[in-house]
Amino acid sequence: MDKPIDPACVFSERATQLTSSAIREILKVTERPEVISFAGGLPAPGGFPVEVMRAGFDKVLSTNGRQALQYGPTEGYAPLREWVAQDLTRAGASVAPDQVLIVSGSQQALDLLGKVLIDRDSKVLVEDPSYLGALQSFSLYQPRYAPVPTDDGGLVPEAITPELAEGGRFLYALPNFQNPTGRTLSRARREALVVQAARLGLPIIEDDPYGELRYAGEPQPGLLALGKDCGANVVRLGTFSKVLAPGLRLGYIAASRSIIHKLVQAKQATDLHTPTLTQMAVYEIVKSGFLEQHLPTVREIYRAQGTCMLEAVEREFPSTVTWTRPEGGMFLWVTLPEHIDSQQLLAQAVEQNVAFVPGAPFYTGTPRRNTLRLSFATVPEDKIRHGIAVLGKLIRQQA
Amino acid sequence: MDKPIDPACVFSERATQLTSSAIREILKVTERPEVISFAGGLPAPGGFPVEVMRAGFDKVLSTNGRQALQYGPTEGYAPLREWVAQDLTRAGASVAPDQVLIVSGSQQALDLLGKVLIDRDSKVLVEDPSYLGALQSFSLYQPRYAPVPTDDGGLVPEAITPELAEGGRFLYALPNFQNPTGRTLSRARREALVVQAARLGLPIIEDDPYGELRYAGEPQPGLLALGKDCGANVVRLGTFSKVLAPGLRLGYIAASRSIIHKLVQAKQATDLHTPTLTQMAVYEIVKSGFLEQHLPTVREIYRAQGTCMLEAVEREFPSTVTWTRPEGGMFLWVTLPEHIDSQQLLAQAVEQNVAFVPGAPFYTGTPRRNTLRLSFATVPEDKIRHGIAVLGKLIRQQA
Repeated sequence: MDKPIDPACVFSERATQLTSSAIREILKVTERPEVISFAGGLPAPGGFPVEVMRAGFDKVLSTNGRQALQYGPTEGYAPLREWVAQDLTRAGASVAPDQVLIVSGSQQALDLLGKVLIDRDSKVLVEDPSYLGALQSFSLYQPRYAPVPTDDGGLVPEAITPELAEGGRFLYALPNFQNPTGRTLSRARREALVVQAARLGLPIIEDDPYGELRYAGEPQPGLLALGKDCGANVVRLGTFSKVLAPGLRLGYIAASRSIIHKLVQAKQATDLHTPTLTQMAVYEIVKSGFLEQHLPTVREIYRAQGTCMLEAVEREFPSTVTWTRPEGGMFLWVTLPEHIDSQQLLAQAVEQNVAFVPGAPFYTGTPRRNTLRLSFATVPEDKIRHGIAVLGKLIRQQA
Repeated sequence: MDKPIDPACVFSERATQLTSSAIREILKVTERPEVISFAGGLPAPGGFPVEVMRAGFDKVLSTNGRQALQYGPTEGYAPLREWVAQDLTRAGASVAPDQVLIVSGSQQALDLLGKVLIDRDSKVLVEDPSYLGALQSFSLYQPRYAPVPTDDGGLVPEAITPELAEGGRFLYALPNFQNPTGRTLSRARREALVVQAARLGLPIIEDDPYGELRYAGEPQPGLLALGKDCGANVVRLGTFSKVLAPGLRLGYIAASRSIIHKLVQAKQATDLHTPTLTQMAVYEIVKSGFLEQHLPTVREIYRAQGTCMLEAVEREFPSTVTWTRPEGGMFLWVTLPEHIDSQQLLAQAVEQNVAFVPGAPFYTGTPRRNTLRLSFATVPEDKIRHGIAVLGKLIRQQA
């Protein structure tokens, strides 16, 4: 194995198309502790309930260790599926436990959905720009993307014409504090979207990792809940990554039984099941309503850091720059003057130990190279102020 | 979502080909406690080191909780990768930590290898019969299987002719206590296999989930270790499922750097990374040499139950029946007289509360319908004796 030349190996076509995530590559560069990184999508570790997790794992291993360490059903730990179904039903959807599949993080949900819904050259509708991790997952199954236009209010439902939807396997949408833009769909747009999707027979994948991280504005009903009356086919993805901890890799899919059935078969071939112990420990933690006590703490961390970043941007960026004002989540989307390429700005910023993600990779349509994404999730307030000042100065030099 | 007719959805071609694992379906039937099931591949829970696991998780969460709950690198937790590299190097291979990828159980290794090595209609060589879970994983990527003949000594190296190997993306092989047959490749066959594969430029995937569960005969070097001198391209899969506990879903891939690089990109799009906490807890447990103390206990459980089953089969089965004598692992492979279809025998056995897996689904070539797989891993000795007696009686009635 230590030969200078690797033994020959023929990679699949999809593998030769694979590239590392632009974001992950940037994160590697910015691992140096002196770098202020607005690039990451990492949740604030100060919000992790470490002691509660410790007690949860300990409880499960001391009372039910053998079950927790044995193989489990592909569908997931039954009490956790039931909890998710009840949680979604409380939020206005109508979900039975057998419509829930527990997955190894939301990213696995995207992989499984790609597996069962995408053939080579299938049309897949995505918001433009959209979450890079989803594009990476879907791309393994070699679809053609049909970008759906967005504006300051997020995805534009009227833009989903019969021509655009024709032959589309699904629309992938993030209605709350979208990644990368931080935008939230209004109630009116949500209603228009599910009605339009139902009319066109277009399934919607509703990805909602950040929904519980709302710290401003009014909570909006989810697409799964809104879709039930008009017969829209909504597949909802949720995760414990942002409300508990991402290192657990625990999420879920709620969907119609026929879709869940196929996803279960695909998951069986993909990783058999999500770790039993993790599912049991998380159930132990959430069953008694822990999230209701815990979420205000998490939201407050994001609110404080988000507000700090908005104030800093307001103060430091010239008037030729615009940005979104998120009601939750972790991201701000910045639009620079047309002539500034954010990739070049990044090179300059990294020299001064500040990092962010350029906007171009998030587009499947024509990339807007003067956009960028700022995350405020993991950066303390003094560093937010300093980092934004550095960026502001660089931008003003070119404005 | 509760409408009688599910909303429309177009599944991918691979999804329409998906079927539930025959084994999992049988396991569902046999979940009734009165059933003696020789069908499962579940490790004996008596061998799970529950207290040690509990201490490991507790240690990590109390000393390093935030790191354990945060996102981690796709490649895996660095100290665990290093431990695996050292473990394999001690066993005669030459593996550096950056040649190790930590995965969410061996099953995920199979999925990732399918992703990066199989195009539609790619030729994939598999032992005939082979592990059903691997066939399921690979089949998602729609290969053509080229079955490699086996005999009582397992895979026949000379059967891998240039014609058979021509255009093959890889050979998938289980050299130790193979699933489903329980057979082990001799040293001579291993050497012939790696030399032949190197000559033909055929990569080998060496799947070794059971290697540490040897309770008889002489340990044999792995294909990765043997292949290094002749330049064979061996990808080795290992798992903590059988030596610690399967519910953890923790395994690894050791391979050349170019393959690991592609696998890391594929894993990033598949589930980002394997849970950080699990990796840290397992590292905490194995780093001080716990497996050396623990493995004799596990081996003794398998030895006792395997021996009990062999004695029962010897006593109860008529002389027209033959079976393998495994040196480890969990399976016996039984060949009935030609006229007995094991699928029909299963129907009769289930009526008397005994279950096993018929042999046909394990074949990619012509299925031998008079074969079946017996697992002794999870069945106590008195139930092994009773269950085998029931089967023996049913077989004798037809012999």
